[in-house]
Amino acid sequence: MSPDISCGLEYLITPDLQACLTEALHCNYSFIVTPVVHPRFRRPYVSSVSTVGGFTRSDMILSPQDWTSRIVAKISPYICVDSMSPVVRQRHEDCLNEELSYCRGLGVPAIMLPLRSSNTNNLARILQTYNETSHHPSLIWASVPMVSTRIAQRNNQDVEESEEAWNETWHWWSKFHERLDWDKRVGVVLELSADLPAQEILKRWLGEPVKAIIVPTSIFHNNKKGYPVLSRAHQQLVINMVEHEAQVIVSGARRSNIEYYVQYLFRMWQRRPYKADDPMLSYAKGWEDYLQTPLQPLADNLDTHTYNVFEKDPVKYDQYQKAITQALIDIRQKRQVKDNDQIVNELCVIMVLGAGRGPLVRATLNAADITQTKVKVIAVEKNPCAVLVLAAQAREVWRDRDVIVIPGDMRQINLSPKADIIVSELLGSWGDNELSPECLDGAAGLLKVDGISIPNEYNSYVAPISSARLWAAAKAASSNSAQQRDKNLETLWVVYMQNKHDIAETKLVFTFKHPAKGTRDHEGKEVTDYRGLPLTDNRRSAIVSWVVKQDNVMHGFGGYFDCSLYGKEMISIVPSTHSPGMISWFPVFIPIKTPLRVHKGEVITATFWRCVNSRRVWYEWIVEVGNCTTPLHNPNGRSSEMLL
Amino acid sequence: MSPDISCGLEYLITPDLQACLTEALHCNYSFIVTPVVHPRFRRPYVSSVSTVGGFTRSDMILSPQDWTSRIVAKISPYICVDSMSPVVRQRHEDCLNEELSYCRGLGVPAIMLPLRSSNTNNLARILQTYNETSHHPSLIWASVPMVSTRIAQRNNQDVEESEEAWNETWHWWSKFHERLDWDKRVGVVLELSADLPAQEILKRWLGEPVKAIIVPTSIFHNNKKGYPVLSRAHQQLVINMVEHEAQVIVSGARRSNIEYYVQYLFRMWQRRPYKADDPMLSYAKGWEDYLQTPLQPLADNLDTHTYNVFEKDPVKYDQYQKAITQALIDIRQKRQVKDNDQIVNELCVIMVLGAGRGPLVRATLNAADITQTKVKVIAVEKNPCAVLVLAAQAREVWRDRDVIVIPGDMRQINLSPKADIIVSELLGSWGDNELSPECLDGAAGLLKVDGISIPNEYNSYVAPISSARLWAAAKAASSNSAQQRDKNLETLWVVYMQNKHDIAETKLVFTFKHPAKGTRDHEGKEVTDYRGLPLTDNRRSAIVSWVVKQDNVMHGFGGYFDCSLYGKEMISIVPSTHSPGMISWFPVFIPIKTPLRVHKGEVITATFWRCVNSRRVWYEWIVEVGNCTTPLHNPNGRSSEMLL
Repeated sequence: MSPDISCGLEYLITPDLQACLTEALHCNYSFIVTPVVHPRFRRPYVSSVSTVGGFTRSDMILSPQDWTSRIVAKISPYICVDSMSPVVRQRHEDCLNEELSYCRGLGVPAIMLPLRSSNTNNLARILQTYNETSHHPSLIWASVPMVSTRIAQRNNQDVEESEEAWNETWHWWSKFHERLDWDKRVGVVLELSADLPAQEILKRWLGEPVKAIIVPTSIFHNNKKGYPVLSRAHQQLVINMVEHEAQVIVSGARRSNIEYYVQYLFRMWQRRPYKADDPMLSYAKGWEDYLQTPLQPLADNLDTHTYNVFEKDPVKYDQYQKAITQALIDIRQKRQVKDNDQIVNELCVIMVLGAGRGPLVRATLNAADITQTKVKVIAVEKNPCAVLVLAAQAREVWRDRDVIVIPGDMRQINLSPKADIIVSELLGSWGDNELSPECLDGAAGLLKVDGISIPNEYNSYVAPISSARLWAAAKAASSNSAQQRDKNLETLWVVYMQNKHDIAETKLVFTFKHPAKGTRDHEGKEVTDYRGLPLTDNRRSAIVSWVVKQDNVMHGFGGYFDCSLYGKEMISIVPSTHSPGMISWFPVFIPIKTPLRVHKGEVITATFWRCVNSRRVWYEWIVEVGNCTTPLHNPNGRSSEMLL
Repeated sequence: MSPDISCGLEYLITPDLQACLTEALHCNYSFIVTPVVHPRFRRPYVSSVSTVGGFTRSDMILSPQDWTSRIVAKISPYICVDSMSPVVRQRHEDCLNEELSYCRGLGVPAIMLPLRSSNTNNLARILQTYNETSHHPSLIWASVPMVSTRIAQRNNQDVEESEEAWNETWHWWSKFHERLDWDKRVGVVLELSADLPAQEILKRWLGEPVKAIIVPTSIFHNNKKGYPVLSRAHQQLVINMVEHEAQVIVSGARRSNIEYYVQYLFRMWQRRPYKADDPMLSYAKGWEDYLQTPLQPLADNLDTHTYNVFEKDPVKYDQYQKAITQALIDIRQKRQVKDNDQIVNELCVIMVLGAGRGPLVRATLNAADITQTKVKVIAVEKNPCAVLVLAAQAREVWRDRDVIVIPGDMRQINLSPKADIIVSELLGSWGDNELSPECLDGAAGLLKVDGISIPNEYNSYVAPISSARLWAAAKAASSNSAQQRDKNLETLWVVYMQNKHDIAETKLVFTFKHPAKGTRDHEGKEVTDYRGLPLTDNRRSAIVSWVVKQDNVMHGFGGYFDCSLYGKEMISIVPSTHSPGMISWFPVFIPIKTPLRVHKGEVITATFWRCVNSRRVWYEWIVEVGNCTTPLHNPNGRSSEMLL
């Protein structure tokens, strides 16, 4: 049995709960789904009148452990607290509260209730109160069919062709979840249909917190040997869902031995298509959707553990080595054009700025070997611990080479001779967000006038995404105070994003080039500072727009970068151009304070500012869709900033 | 000179600022509007390069007192920080910051800047930072014309007929104000046009925080004697605006002696149409838009001052007296039908529940005198201080009458004989919000089976309103902590609302009747509690919808009540049926946490819940418009409640 798939069995009625549970466990199901109310018990008409005996069975029939781990309790299906009739609303509200408080008493892990329309204001209100008044509220599982056959029938359409019918039930869920403020204790249970919708619609569901899928026995068919099996499309969907941590619930008439269904599901999971051997997959295991605060290597010195992780990247330093190699070749060629042997054989000065524990020094030395160039390598590093490591290597490992270690901040030191090449790796997950522009501009005086900077350009990118999970995690991070919550939604989070859906394509935000050109005055002359260096302006603002492809809810952005090292050598974490196997960066999640409901055809417009003053750098952002707009995020860097 | 109108004079350039100010003050203007930048000073192209001399005049030319009270500083009109060009954006940003920080240094009371489109994201962002980084930021006055002639021209329409052209500039202002989170330090300056729009559009402006109106000299015409005068429509508009605390700025070419304009405005204001002698106007003076927490007379005992105020109402007790009179007449008539002298002449028992210091006892005794009925009046009161006053009056003033004072909570006492009539005045500004239903249902056992309750019915109402001022005041009330802000926007505020605009008509929410009918069981029988009293359910939920008549921003609701005392005798604070001269209640403002932008033709749907448990009563509410929705307000009464 694979430990990676958890299957449950749904019972429509459970006159003998213990017998049902025993049967299901015997057949290797892990849990059962059962109505809260026993069929024999009749509910009194006016609930506030106390009746002897209560409305359902006693909790003595199962062990506490079974109640808290094996039972998903279903709310009575007739309960409709959003009826148009005020009398029905109030009566059903009483019933619902009664069942909820019974579940609270039993401590069941999850309470399942069906959504039937997008009118769930009162239902959501009652559940919100339930959550706020319970110490350990059960999870809420809202079940919806994948398609609304009613809508398809109303439109006289085949189910398969009615986009509205497939959108409809997603709207039910999405509005309900919105009403509960995207609470992470509330998830969706998706009842698979015989027909399946377009890929885009399936992908949207993969961005939702699908806690379980209901697989009706009716969508299985029997194979030649008489065992129940699923179609290829259904198999793929179930596997995708389980990979996104959904459990599987078998439900409906027993057309076959009930044991066969779970056996089939286990086997299908074990035989699922093999994923390519991507180092990222194993490296990121356990970090899925886990939010981290971005590093501030300029303000804080990195620790050994962090260096250890980054130096293990199997791709990044190869790319650097290729880029340095090409740069050395080009420099030699340029010198040869000048046809002067003395110059051709002149020492090439390469400075590694922010050398850390030396990986770029090694790449540089390798490149020198490959191109048979005489190089002088100057390793500049401000972190005293890393300087110790560098100095030890210079003494011991690189003692035959011309390697000098200079402790200090690249923005403040002055060295001679100047460099033919400066090499640095100062990028964050969103490109410039670890202040690479400020560092490299500050070190511009170290480079010869026609010198080469590796990298020579980098770009940040964003895509609008839907992810209730990431948004709720950001909101809840660190603290429960409302003040903190505000801050959390005004900051960038480094995260390996899984449970999310891209609303539109990834687009360019900011670009930085090195060596940077300075600001020009009204006569077109470059303005310089007191050291004679170009006065650069690393403030940026960018307005980016997208057309929405299908109805969705936007919770923020995925943020990425790509970087041109030299010539054609790139590194990228933009999904479409991601450097294969490079593990040094997870993307960033940039939340918005108020998630925005977006509709097909609408235009999302985002404005990002990169703000700079003498002490710090920060981002601000705003998003507008139709009539709705977010507040300005992080005004004056009040919630997040990078210190210079 | 009237102290109620403040006029300023706008100068397009002020080469000699002191001379300009002297001239304006000499002509009886109170302040001048002047550009920040002196025309002689040329701004360096790159602002970060320090230049000797700076970009404008020294601040030594005026006294600090003149700077802080007589000068409205205008930002250079060419500054456009929302240009499409990133280079222009950044350069103009530098200029704007320079001018803002100069204004900050001078301490001018207000900074005026023009809005030219609804694209003001960057402008608003910079001003937000200015506000957050200033200890005493100047007020921001955003100036807009009343009409966008550009839009009218584009549409090939006469300005007067182009609804879009009149809406346009309101949108500029409204989106800008939204971007600044409806900050109360940010107001609008409205430049009057020669043509005027429909009344609805003018009314919408009256709901905005109009700090000043600019009256161009070009819209004055000369009367027979050659003095400048305004048309009747313009006069009315100026008067309305000044009544809403706007100042008046005269601007433009001097077609007449500049002194004549201000003289005309003063005279016009003094001769403005006389308002009917409404006691509310004098009573509410000074309370305009001032938020108060609703009373909780059930949980807290009222103080003498409060009784004093309420007893002075010139209308309310008259209405009660008429209602009691009519009830006594009807009781006698009913008894006469039974044709039994003994019954006809039987004592009529009238209980005043919550008698306070006795105004309803007096009304009852008066009604008895008028109808020549023998009455026994029982005054029930739980507030010990008020009981003292009642007892003293019973001894001294009412010593010849049959008046008994019973100290105690009407919900807990038991009296015999039972009452023919119970009279109470337990209503709050939103009807049931001081728990009248719970009190009267609790006292139901005191009333004869066919007895009369005065009042016998009351209804609460709401209308969606726009009022940035009330919303900002609610948000800021009590505290600056984010937690408190949340609470403040989840509670009802009693307030004499002035600076607001009704988005749609006033509609019914909840109804309560007395004596109340009890809940019925499934056999249709009334359910009773252990005392044999009907078991009532004072929970309510109501869904109310409105169609939006013109583009607007909804900040919350105005809340009102009306009440049927007996027969045709009513009291009401619903604007359309307000009891003339009744001063006992201001309306309530019910805020929403996220103001909603609403467009003509859209439907606003609000759901209100009145929730009850054994200890307390509270309201919850939600509003939906198109795709936008507010969160649920006050779930589980977390922010506001009324204690039982």
